[in-house]
Amino acid sequence: MKPLFGQPLAVVNVGLASFADGLAAAGAPVARVQWSPPGGDPATATALARLLGDASVDAANRQALDAYLAAEPVLEGVGVARDVVPGLGERMLLHAGPPIDWARMGGAMRGAVIGACLLEGWAQDHDAARAMAERGEIRFDPCHHHAAVGPMAGIISPSMPVWMLRSGGKRAFSNLNEGLGKVLRYGANGPEVIAKLRWMGDTLGPALAKALAATGPVELKPLMGRALHMGDEMHNRNAASSALLFKRLVAGILRAGVPGADAAAVIDFLNGNDFFFLNVGMAACKAMLDAAHGVPGSTLVTAMARNGTDFGIRVSGAGERWFTGPAQVPDGLFFPGYGPADAGRDIGDSAITETAGIGGFAMAAAPAIVQFIGGTPQRALEATLTMRHVTLGANPAFTIPMLGFAGSPAGIDVRRVVDTGIAPIINTGMAHREAGVGQVGAGIVRPPMECFTQALAALARTLGERARARVMTTSEKPEEKPHA
Amino acid sequence: MKPLFGQPLAVVNVGLASFADGLAAAGAPVARVQWSPPGGDPATATALARLLGDASVDAANRQALDAYLAAEPVLEGVGVARDVVPGLGERMLLHAGPPIDWARMGGAMRGAVIGACLLEGWAQDHDAARAMAERGEIRFDPCHHHAAVGPMAGIISPSMPVWMLRSGGKRAFSNLNEGLGKVLRYGANGPEVIAKLRWMGDTLGPALAKALAATGPVELKPLMGRALHMGDEMHNRNAASSALLFKRLVAGILRAGVPGADAAAVIDFLNGNDFFFLNVGMAACKAMLDAAHGVPGSTLVTAMARNGTDFGIRVSGAGERWFTGPAQVPDGLFFPGYGPADAGRDIGDSAITETAGIGGFAMAAAPAIVQFIGGTPQRALEATLTMRHVTLGANPAFTIPMLGFAGSPAGIDVRRVVDTGIAPIINTGMAHREAGVGQVGAGIVRPPMECFTQALAALARTLGERARARVMTTSEKPEEKPHA
Repeated sequence: MKPLFGQPLAVVNVGLASFADGLAAAGAPVARVQWSPPGGDPATATALARLLGDASVDAANRQALDAYLAAEPVLEGVGVARDVVPGLGERMLLHAGPPIDWARMGGAMRGAVIGACLLEGWAQDHDAARAMAERGEIRFDPCHHHAAVGPMAGIISPSMPVWMLRSGGKRAFSNLNEGLGKVLRYGANGPEVIAKLRWMGDTLGPALAKALAATGPVELKPLMGRALHMGDEMHNRNAASSALLFKRLVAGILRAGVPGADAAAVIDFLNGNDFFFLNVGMAACKAMLDAAHGVPGSTLVTAMARNGTDFGIRVSGAGERWFTGPAQVPDGLFFPGYGPADAGRDIGDSAITETAGIGGFAMAAAPAIVQFIGGTPQRALEATLTMRHVTLGANPAFTIPMLGFAGSPAGIDVRRVVDTGIAPIINTGMAHREAGVGQVGAGIVRPPMECFTQALAALARTLGERARARVMTTSEKPEEKPHA
Repeated sequence: MKPLFGQPLAVVNVGLASFADGLAAAGAPVARVQWSPPGGDPATATALARLLGDASVDAANRQALDAYLAAEPVLEGVGVARDVVPGLGERMLLHAGPPIDWARMGGAMRGAVIGACLLEGWAQDHDAARAMAERGEIRFDPCHHHAAVGPMAGIISPSMPVWMLRSGGKRAFSNLNEGLGKVLRYGANGPEVIAKLRWMGDTLGPALAKALAATGPVELKPLMGRALHMGDEMHNRNAASSALLFKRLVAGILRAGVPGADAAAVIDFLNGNDFFFLNVGMAACKAMLDAAHGVPGSTLVTAMARNGTDFGIRVSGAGERWFTGPAQVPDGLFFPGYGPADAGRDIGDSAITETAGIGGFAMAAAPAIVQFIGGTPQRALEATLTMRHVTLGANPAFTIPMLGFAGSPAGIDVRRVVDTGIAPIINTGMAHREAGVGQVGAGIVRPPMECFTQALAALARTLGERARARVMTTSEKPEEKPHA
C-alpha cells in the first residue's frame, strides 16, 4: 500500500455531487463526472437489464429492422379522404400525435380544427365551429390509427385529397402539403387558407390523381435516396425531393390532358412549394415502419408523434399503445417579428421521418438546413453520428455522402435511448401557440425521456409475462400429449 | 560550437537527392524533403519574384476579381447560332479549347466535326466529311473567340440552337446539352446522334425560346448558389441545377402554347438529362470571367480550355493570347467495357467552371460526385481547400455549407499556381480516343504547368515593358511641357 499513499492523490467523483463536495471542502482535488443510473430509478435499471440481456429481444429487433429495411413504399395515387382512408367517418377529423380531446388541444391544433369545420361546411363561422367542438359534436382520432400521417396539426377532414401509398399489402396515407405562410397545418384558418384548401380539393388533387394515373406508380425509396445526395433530410428540407417528384408529375400532368389553365396553376403551385414532398415522404416512412410494427418482444420504435400537448411513441412489440409525455417547445430560429414567447409546443406526425432514419437522423446529408433551423454544419454532422448510439442499424437505401456513403442510422431502440440517456433529435417547424396565426420558425426538439422509460417498463413486463407463459406451456405440454 | 557538435546530428536534405545520397551512403541519418524552385528554372523564379513584388499587379487583380464578382449573368433566350453568335460564318465550326487545325485534332473532335458536317448537310457521308476537312474547306475557330463555350468537343455549327446570356453589356453563348450516351460532344456521329441534333434544332430550341420569352430572363447566380446547396458542383454533377432550371422552364413551356406533343417530348427530354444545365452554367461562367478579362497587369486566369490535343489558358492581363501545353489523360472511373487505354486526352471548354470557382473548385459542396468521378468525399473536401492556395478570393454568391458557408475559392492567380506548384483541379468527362465512339468515363485532370509558367513569363515581360514605358513617359514629360 505504501507506493499508492506515498504519492499525491486526486479524486474522480462519478454521479452524486454531495460526495465530492465534502472532499473539495477539505481541500482535495476533485474531478466531477456527471452520471446517473440509466432511466434514473432502480425499476427502470432492472427493466433495462432484463431487456438488454434477452436474446429473444435481439432476434425480434432483427426481424423488425429487416421488415423496415425490406419495405418498398410506392406512391400510387391521390384520392378523397372519405373514400379511401380506412375508418374515417363523417363528422370525424384525424389529427397528429397520440389521442387528444378538444379540451386539451393547443392553439395550433384548435385553429386547424376550426378551419377544417369551415372547409367541410359543418360550421359557418369560427365561433360556431368552436362551439361544435366544445359540445363534442366532432369525433377526433389520431391519423396514426387510420394508416395516415399529417405534418404539424395533421388535420385530415373527409373532403381533403390524400396521397395513397402502398408497400407490400399495406397502405399509407397523408394529406397534401399547402406550402409555407398562412396554412391550416400551422393553425391558420382565415378565408385565404380555406380558399386554398378548396382549390387543392377541386383542382390540385384531381390533377395529381390524373398525373399519377398517366405516369404510373412512383417508387419512393430511390427518389428519397437521391434527394439525400442533393442536400435534403426530408423533414425540414425538401427542396430536392420536391423537385424530383415535380419532374415525375409534370410529364403526367401534360399527358393526362389536365386543362391548360389548371395545369399552369398546378405547376405554379408545385414550383413555389419546396415542402411539397414532405407529406409524401412522411407517408413513405409510415409505410416502412408499419412493416416493422407488431413483432412480439421488439423494442424498435415505430412511431414518434406529437399533438401539440403530448409527445407519444409506439413500439413494435407493444401493440397499439402510446407512451406519452409532455411535448416540449422547440429550440431554433424564428421568422422576423416572432420570438420564443410565441412558440407553441412540439406538434405533428412529421417525427415519423426521424423514426425512419431521415430528418434529424440524416442531417449530415443536409448541411444547408442550418440556415433554416439554426446551428452549424458541424452540429448537423454530429447529429447523425450521435443517433448511431440509439439505433439498431443503418439503412443502405439512404446513404450519406459526407459520411463515406454510410447508411443513415435507423431503427430507434427503446433500450439504447434509456441506456445512453440520448433522446432522438427531431427537426421541426414551430407553430404559434395561439389558434389562427401560423408558423413562427423552425428548429430542433427532443422527445421527453419518459416516453421511452414507460415503454421500456411495459416491454419488460410483457417479456416477463411471455417467459412465465412459456414455462406454463412447457409444464402443461406433457399433460396434453403424454405419449409424445 | 561545442554544444552543437557534441550531440548526435541528423541531416534534412531539401531538394536535389544527390546531396543526401552521399551522406546516407556514409551512414548519416537523412530526412529528405521534396522541393524544387518555383517553376523549376531561374527565369521563372525571377519572373515570379517580379510579379509577386509588384503592387500594381495586386491592384489589377483586385480590379479583375471585383469585376468577376460583380457580374450578374442572366439567361435571356435561345437563338440559332448563325443568327446570334458574333462572327460565325458559313462553313465555319466553332470548337472547344485553343485554336487547332484538322491535322492535329484528336479522335473525339474529329468525330464531332464529321457529325456537324452531316448535320449541316455539307457532306452526305463520313468519308466525304472527312475529305472536306482534310482539303481545308471548313474553317475552324475556338468557341472562346466568339463569346461562346462548348463542353467536350464543343462543336457549334451554324444551324444549332444556342443559349443566349447577357451580363452587363456583354453576351455569352453555349450550345444545348444532348444528354449522356451517344452524343456529338463526345465524338459520336451515328444516325441517332444526327437525328437527335435535328430534333433539338427543330423542336427543343424553339420550345425553349418560347418558354424563356414567356417566363422572362432567369438570373443564374442565385440558381447556381442554390444548386451548390443541393450537392451540385455544376461541372460533372448538374442534377440539382438542371431540376431548378427545369422548374422555371416548364411553367414557360405551358404558358407559351408549345403544341402538346412537342411539349411532352421536350419535357421528357429535359427530365431525362441531368446534365442539361451544364452548358448554361458554362456560359454563365464565361460571362463572369469575360467581365474580368483585359485588366492590364492582372495575373487572374480568365479561361482554361482544351481541344483534345492542347490545354490552353488565357489571362486577364495578357490579352487574347493562349498559353498552351499538352492535354493530359484524365484519371477516374470508366463505364463498363472501357478502360484507361480507351481514354482520349482532356477536352472541352467546360474547365471554364473551375476557372470561375465551381466544378472541381466547389467539390466540397458535392460529395456524391465521387460516385461518378472516383475518389472519396474527404478528397472532394480537400480539393476545395487546396484550391484556396491558388486563388485570389472567394465568391460569396457560391457558398459551401460543409465549409461553414465559406465562398468557393475563385480567381486563379497564375503567380500562386507557379509559386505553390499546385495545378488547378478539374472534374471532367472522358471521351474515347477514337472518332465516333463517345463517352468512356469521368474523372479528374490537371492542366500542364507550362501553361502557367509561359503566362507568368509573358506577364513579367509586359510588366517590364510598362515600367520602361512609364520611365520614358516621365523623362519625356519635362520636354513636352517645359514650364509645367
